[in-house]
Amino acid sequence: MKIVIAGSGNVATQLGRALLGAGFPVAQVWSPTYANAAELAARLGAAAVAEAGGLDRDADLYVLAVKDDAIPAVAAGLAGVPGMVVHTSGTTPMHVLSKLPAHGVFYPLQTFSRFREIDFSDVPLCLEAGSTAVLEGLRTLAGRLSSRVYEVSSAQRRSLHVAAVFANNFSNHLFSIAAGVLNDSNLPFDLLRPLIRETAAKVQDGMPAEMQTGPAIRGDQQTIDRHLGMLQYKPEWARLYLDLSESIKKTGK
Amino acid sequence: MKIVIAGSGNVATQLGRALLGAGFPVAQVWSPTYANAAELAARLGAAAVAEAGGLDRDADLYVLAVKDDAIPAVAAGLAGVPGMVVHTSGTTPMHVLSKLPAHGVFYPLQTFSRFREIDFSDVPLCLEAGSTAVLEGLRTLAGRLSSRVYEVSSAQRRSLHVAAVFANNFSNHLFSIAAGVLNDSNLPFDLLRPLIRETAAKVQDGMPAEMQTGPAIRGDQQTIDRHLGMLQYKPEWARLYLDLSESIKKTGK
Repeated sequence: MKIVIAGSGNVATQLGRALLGAGFPVAQVWSPTYANAAELAARLGAAAVAEAGGLDRDADLYVLAVKDDAIPAVAAGLAGVPGMVVHTSGTTPMHVLSKLPAHGVFYPLQTFSRFREIDFSDVPLCLEAGSTAVLEGLRTLAGRLSSRVYEVSSAQRRSLHVAAVFANNFSNHLFSIAAGVLNDSNLPFDLLRPLIRETAAKVQDGMPAEMQTGPAIRGDQQTIDRHLGMLQYKPEWARLYLDLSESIKKTGK
Repeated sequence: MKIVIAGSGNVATQLGRALLGAGFPVAQVWSPTYANAAELAARLGAAAVAEAGGLDRDADLYVLAVKDDAIPAVAAGLAGVPGMVVHTSGTTPMHVLSKLPAHGVFYPLQTFSRFREIDFSDVPLCLEAGSTAVLEGLRTLAGRLSSRVYEVSSAQRRSLHVAAVFANNFSNHLFSIAAGVLNDSNLPFDLLRPLIRETAAKVQDGMPAEMQTGPAIRGDQQTIDRHLGMLQYKPEWARLYLDLSESIKKTGK
């Protein structure tokens, strides 16, 4: 199977490594910045390509792991290729690739950092395809990389991306605020690390609605008021504290 | 060392188990509800006590793991005991115990569930004491239970509790909202579990401010607007999405 990757960011890097590890070498890497393409190509034992027009036309799979707004242009450059062309975006609908005969989406739902290795066998791979043949092709490949393969429509993928923003981006921001509160009291963030680990561990078996604890769910207004008083020096944090507490009280979870 | 526990909730249960496991059996358990005291006492091989007045007066350590507003009454009942009396509350200042000659605070910073075993060796134990002698006594005991022992003042502990609410209660609530978004699109919560695990894992080595990703930190207003559009059917979630995104944009982390 001849595979080509467009992009050299976190997804391109981690997916490229996972493909190589599963016995699917990558033939070519192109990126808007040649130096980045060269660096990733070297890591993957692939050839770096300077111009998108220089990509081979006979690959079996083109993975477009570029920025969302760059996808249409790269896709246009691949017009007429018979191989499968997929993007890896959580927010981009599949139809931006609809002019290509064998198109689909290969969305790995995880937070990737360039230099942090991810166990891909545990990454949910969300697939969508323009035809049954492409779906089967993607399914076979995905099954070699991960034990978690899902078929997800464009509309569902958009919801999934919103959910991921809550679960990852926003909770990380709350960790950031917590670190700020500690720092303002000369306490190390290390104090909170076991709690954060356990918070994530608890929802691995159960549902978060069953795990909710704290003053808001208990209706402990005295503690909430004390906390708001303590946060008066930082009105943005007090406001988020209030909004999140109200939301917990209202929904009961 | 003779130890008495007042309380039978999650903290009393997990701390009692940890003490027993570290070679410190618990002599007596009292709780406002006798059946609960009896159940925990049976698990710990301790004697259940029906009335707070029935607690032995010669214990070396009294652990008050009762509800915050019940602490003063239990403390009053122990007036005159020479042993150490500590509470385990994140929000209650130490001075509520100041009439007792040997008083302090023994606050385990973790989220406890009654039936989920916690590796106590990893739980930060936050100590405060009314005297050097009590501090040394608590330090010795804490060091046998956990490798993470901190001295934390009442004011610092209040900040710590606020930070813990952000890190645990509020992030769990965001997981709950994420589960709701998925459910509304007929997607299983299981899709998000690896992401949540990785979100927590990333801040174990680094600081959350360095780990922030997503549309808000990228200034990707187009994606933010699409997500807000998708959330229009649930105005409370849309509002939290907006507030959290604004907070990330403002602080840059």
